[in-house]
Amino acid sequence: MLFDAIDKKLMSKAISVAARGIPNAFPNPAVGCVICYDNEILSTGYHQEYGGKHAEYNALKKISNTASGLTMYVTLEPCNHKGKTDPCQDLIHSSVFDRIVIADSDPNQKASGSIEKLRQKGIKVDVGLLKKDARKINSRFYTFHEKKRPYVILKYASTLDGFVADGDGTSKWITNQKSRMQNHYTRSTCDAIIVGRRTAMLDNPSLGSYGYGKDPKIIVIDPKKSLGRNLNLFKKEPIIYSRPILKNSPVKNVSLIMNDLYDKNIKSVLVEGGAKTISSFLDAGLYDELHCYIAPKFLGSGLNIFQGQRSINCELELELIETKIIDNDVRIIYRNLV
Amino acid sequence: MLFDAIDKKLMSKAISVAARGIPNAFPNPAVGCVICYDNEILSTGYHQEYGGKHAEYNALKKISNTASGLTMYVTLEPCNHKGKTDPCQDLIHSSVFDRIVIADSDPNQKASGSIEKLRQKGIKVDVGLLKKDARKINSRFYTFHEKKRPYVILKYASTLDGFVADGDGTSKWITNQKSRMQNHYTRSTCDAIIVGRRTAMLDNPSLGSYGYGKDPKIIVIDPKKSLGRNLNLFKKEPIIYSRPILKNSPVKNVSLIMNDLYDKNIKSVLVEGGAKTISSFLDAGLYDELHCYIAPKFLGSGLNIFQGQRSINCELELELIETKIIDNDVRIIYRNLV
Repeated sequence: MLFDAIDKKLMSKAISVAARGIPNAFPNPAVGCVICYDNEILSTGYHQEYGGKHAEYNALKKISNTASGLTMYVTLEPCNHKGKTDPCQDLIHSSVFDRIVIADSDPNQKASGSIEKLRQKGIKVDVGLLKKDARKINSRFYTFHEKKRPYVILKYASTLDGFVADGDGTSKWITNQKSRMQNHYTRSTCDAIIVGRRTAMLDNPSLGSYGYGKDPKIIVIDPKKSLGRNLNLFKKEPIIYSRPILKNSPVKNVSLIMNDLYDKNIKSVLVEGGAKTISSFLDAGLYDELHCYIAPKFLGSGLNIFQGQRSINCELELELIETKIIDNDVRIIYRNLV
Repeated sequence: MLFDAIDKKLMSKAISVAARGIPNAFPNPAVGCVICYDNEILSTGYHQEYGGKHAEYNALKKISNTASGLTMYVTLEPCNHKGKTDPCQDLIHSSVFDRIVIADSDPNQKASGSIEKLRQKGIKVDVGLLKKDARKINSRFYTFHEKKRPYVILKYASTLDGFVADGDGTSKWITNQKSRMQNHYTRSTCDAIIVGRRTAMLDNPSLGSYGYGKDPKIIVIDPKKSLGRNLNLFKKEPIIYSRPILKNSPVKNVSLIMNDLYDKNIKSVLVEGGAKTISSFLDAGLYDELHCYIAPKFLGSGLNIFQGQRSINCELELELIETKIIDNDVRIIYRNLV
């Protein structure tokens, strides 16, 4: 067997160390590293923030220059390219390390390739330990590189009976202030926010993270370029998608936008509505998480969150991963398994 | 000060002992009793099941005949009438007890009156310690006696966009089997279930508790007596509300039914739908808990749970008391604070 119980325990430690880098490492992956001698942990390190030193560097700096015969457990293949930091692969010497255990190879073609190089140095490299667990904490990163599109979070706030706005478009105050603050935090973890024309016009949102972190790039879907430039979001140089790039099919437009955002290196987007925009993403199936904020209200009529049409027997492959009570509101988070 | 910190600690113990009687004590209140000498607990007892011995009896039976100078902490005024058991008041003698501490007096006029009688025996009786906490575990009991109507739980299962049935009435399989089982348990804790005509006709439910406990009495609202007698629920001798007892206003009919069920000594009801029936109770404001089962589905059209009409600024005074993840469904329980 390639891996024994001690290997699993040490990689599990590396994964939990990696998770400390969430969300500050975004849009980089959260990576953890554990260095051992004879199964005893000598040091740990993780990628603390975007642009900062990598996990391997942070673990290595605590190790004596004269050490040898060590094993490294790292949750992602060490990088093999010079980006904001030097290649981690160069820091790993066969005089120090006998063995490197890697949870998963790097899906980013620009950064991968070190597994072969480390082997060429004469180091034993074992890949695939707790791969599923290691991938789970970096779902954004894997989605971007493997699906060639941003990681997509759909967020909406509705009444218990499914309405996101009154008949006259009033929608700003469905959920409570704490719920809205919770979403401001989510904004700070995303590269960009997408809103549709109607939301931009009726809510005139500023779409900031209100001090929780960086403000995401704003993206607005405005097919006919009909939005007035005095709206708040135009103060922030948004990306605007309009015709003729957009076509008549909202579902196809979602694909077009996702492809373009991949080319623009936008790794995660929060789609904040309105109902038509959210529904296009739901119908396209192009989303990874669904954040539903539900307020204890009933409206009876208005704008329903879902503008499509489905049978009651149509099961979405959604996994409920969290419910959070926010005073009398609740947030439900689903993961799209497709 | 009437009560000190030790009193509070001992009454708190009595309340936690009382809670063990939920739900088997229903429709009786869950009551707990702690007997002490010099602040040291000698015995505890609680009302274990409907028809069984009361908390005071269960605590007293563990006490020596020759004991004296004791204090009793009990979460509800000892009963003063002969029901299924002898009056507890008769069991409490001044030769044994110096002091009785009671969380709250009994709102049931048939059973109350012992506070005065115990004082006449020369026992010091202090009432009102942790009253709010003690009432909380018996909200059904207090609602029935103080509001003169059954404790009402509204239950529905909807999609995320608020629909309880397809356009053609199909609604049986919105939530998963575990969710339905969870509701079967709730049925077993209620005296009766109410359904409307449409639900009886389209779903033809049997409305049992499927082995979780007793089957509740079935109540069906059938204004025109138009339901076919071959439906499952007619096998169980339901209570049927029809014209001319029912009037043209569904909201007023809710009050009429509640008054009649109070007279029939039905202490708790689970209203299982459909949308029109639930909406009548919501509009009447006559409910105590709202159990929302939500499935990760979107329909886009169909029968919405709320058939009324409200403004987005209309805040219901609902307190969210629990969310429960049931595989990929979620159950949200609200308490109506009005």
